[in-house]
Amino acid sequence: MRTRICDTLGIEHPIVGFTPSEHVAAAISRAGGLGVLGCVRFNDADELDAVLDWMDDNTDGRPYGVDVVMPAKIPTEGAAVDLQALIPPEHLEFVQRTLADLGVPELADGEQQADGVLGWLHSVARSHVDVALRHPIRLIANALGSPPVDVIRQAHEHDVLVAALAGKAEHARRHVDNGVDIVVAQGHEAGGHTGEIATMVLVPEIVDAVGDRAPVLAAGGIGSGRQIAAALALGAGGAWLGSYWLTTSEYQQMPGNTATQQALLAAGSSDTVRSRIYTGKPARLLKTRWTDSWAADDAPEPLPMPLQNILVSEAHQRIMRSGDPGVVSMPVGQIVGRMNKIRPVADVVADLLAELDETIATLNKLR
Amino acid sequence: MRTRICDTLGIEHPIVGFTPSEHVAAAISRAGGLGVLGCVRFNDADELDAVLDWMDDNTDGRPYGVDVVMPAKIPTEGAAVDLQALIPPEHLEFVQRTLADLGVPELADGEQQADGVLGWLHSVARSHVDVALRHPIRLIANALGSPPVDVIRQAHEHDVLVAALAGKAEHARRHVDNGVDIVVAQGHEAGGHTGEIATMVLVPEIVDAVGDRAPVLAAGGIGSGRQIAAALALGAGGAWLGSYWLTTSEYQQMPGNTATQQALLAAGSSDTVRSRIYTGKPARLLKTRWTDSWAADDAPEPLPMPLQNILVSEAHQRIMRSGDPGVVSMPVGQIVGRMNKIRPVADVVADLLAELDETIATLNKLR
Repeated sequence: MRTRICDTLGIEHPIVGFTPSEHVAAAISRAGGLGVLGCVRFNDADELDAVLDWMDDNTDGRPYGVDVVMPAKIPTEGAAVDLQALIPPEHLEFVQRTLADLGVPELADGEQQADGVLGWLHSVARSHVDVALRHPIRLIANALGSPPVDVIRQAHEHDVLVAALAGKAEHARRHVDNGVDIVVAQGHEAGGHTGEIATMVLVPEIVDAVGDRAPVLAAGGIGSGRQIAAALALGAGGAWLGSYWLTTSEYQQMPGNTATQQALLAAGSSDTVRSRIYTGKPARLLKTRWTDSWAADDAPEPLPMPLQNILVSEAHQRIMRSGDPGVVSMPVGQIVGRMNKIRPVADVVADLLAELDETIATLNKLR
Repeated sequence: MRTRICDTLGIEHPIVGFTPSEHVAAAISRAGGLGVLGCVRFNDADELDAVLDWMDDNTDGRPYGVDVVMPAKIPTEGAAVDLQALIPPEHLEFVQRTLADLGVPELADGEQQADGVLGWLHSVARSHVDVALRHPIRLIANALGSPPVDVIRQAHEHDVLVAALAGKAEHARRHVDNGVDIVVAQGHEAGGHTGEIATMVLVPEIVDAVGDRAPVLAAGGIGSGRQIAAALALGAGGAWLGSYWLTTSEYQQMPGNTATQQALLAAGSSDTVRSRIYTGKPARLLKTRWTDSWAADDAPEPLPMPLQNILVSEAHQRIMRSGDPGVVSMPVGQIVGRMNKIRPVADVVADLLAELDETIATLNKLR
């Protein structure tokens, strides 16, 4: 199963996999897809550099990409300590009270990460790009739409393609105008940052809006060969899967994953919420007692990006340490209902491809 | 293009079209699909009887169906006058004030429909079933899930199939347990009553949940051959389209449609909202100044079904009479972004089928 985007990206199968785990990303690339490593968790560019060295050694020379979080317009910026000062005390108090109510223990001395997660800051995302361009990456994807035009130019000078997520046709058109090479049409049902329009409606709308100017990857709600076939039927050149890798064996090397995978395996497709509590922008998360607390009447309005993520950063560390599946804070899409077994990436990809082929054969018999 | 459901329903093409207009429904059946007439607007069973006589004369002997609104559990019931007494004065006051603010004129003497719309009442929906079963209908669809088991039995005694809408796999399973013959898996992006789970995720989930026990029609976000191909790829036996017929030429015979069609033609896929203001249960509507008013801070919480529809019934008549596209109150799905031209049903169906065939041929070339 080859589409034009396979040639564009130099991959065998039209499957692009976003993941925060280098072990998963490398396995996706080795399986003939394109593994795209999420960089937001790397506060320190040197740490990312070391992980990309590892990717270079573990992808058998297959292409891979990175994903950064970079708004085209630069938001509130500054050192972590300045930004902390912008967080209202009521919000801090709510978080502390909620964690206590949920029985989430405090961190032991020395466990706390000094600065929280800074990958949401523009300056940090730029350092990710600089580091990534020193590696043989094939793609930089930006989770928040078009990156600034100078970043696109920089990528193109290194012969690296740029992908941008879009939740509306007008955004996709603007991305391509800005020089973006590949549009990821991400529907409402997706995990993480997501808009209102569902994949079924969004994909053909974006395909029609960008025409021959850029291939489109369909994202949101995809975790089976039937769904990849549907994405291709809608006019996409391939599928972008994010959530679906969270229950792979390779993901078990991520810290604190045991409770996360346990919670994901147990969840159905109704067990997600779309909320601003993770980053300040609407993102789909696993529904747990943590998200329920933020939906309660006494909860404050989430803060804008990047303050909200700084606000909950220590809470995320505490939740992770707690090992309690009932309070997990995790972006995931509605496809979580189909994530019912821990399996190696290679098996997942093989099953996706087999079902994709079978689905198209079955469709063709109807003609 | 034939699927098993074509044989089950005795139709040529796997396209089922829901519509409140007998002119549209008959045209869908004549074009080789199954037209399904929405009955909720008929307060008087005799009026429905006359319209079904017309359908019998105008469907060239092709099969057609009806759609009723019947909760399995009987909700608050009673004469319109009793129910009126349950509506809080603040709600009535809000509706009057909002209509005045929006410049919607009052009705002239004698224009007001005495009882509002009563099709949402269980007793009225039952009278629809009784009348419909005196006609050669092929299908009774129920918009709110399984109808009561005695209604299913009654339908089966008349050799009429029963379809039920489902927004979750567990509901679909229950419908089939109750004796329902066809499940309509209706995703979040659909118009009218709709759940949280998007079509891309919901359809294969329901297909897997009911297995061989019942065919599944995919609903929500479908208005092109590519989307029907996607629905079939997801495992559906066919597509259920509702919104897409609202901009057909035949729909122009519905009263007050000029402003409605004008508003629909102008709307994009982002111009819908999911709200309880139409019936008391979450339903996707065209976003207009009327829906905006209900989303404002000073708006009351919508009432439960059937009270909310009784509350807004006169408002709906006034809005319809006003002829103002900016205040239209109309259920429609996100596919409204693809509804950009008034065309006859026969042309719409022909285009859907041609694109469906072309899409599957294109997919097959990728193998």
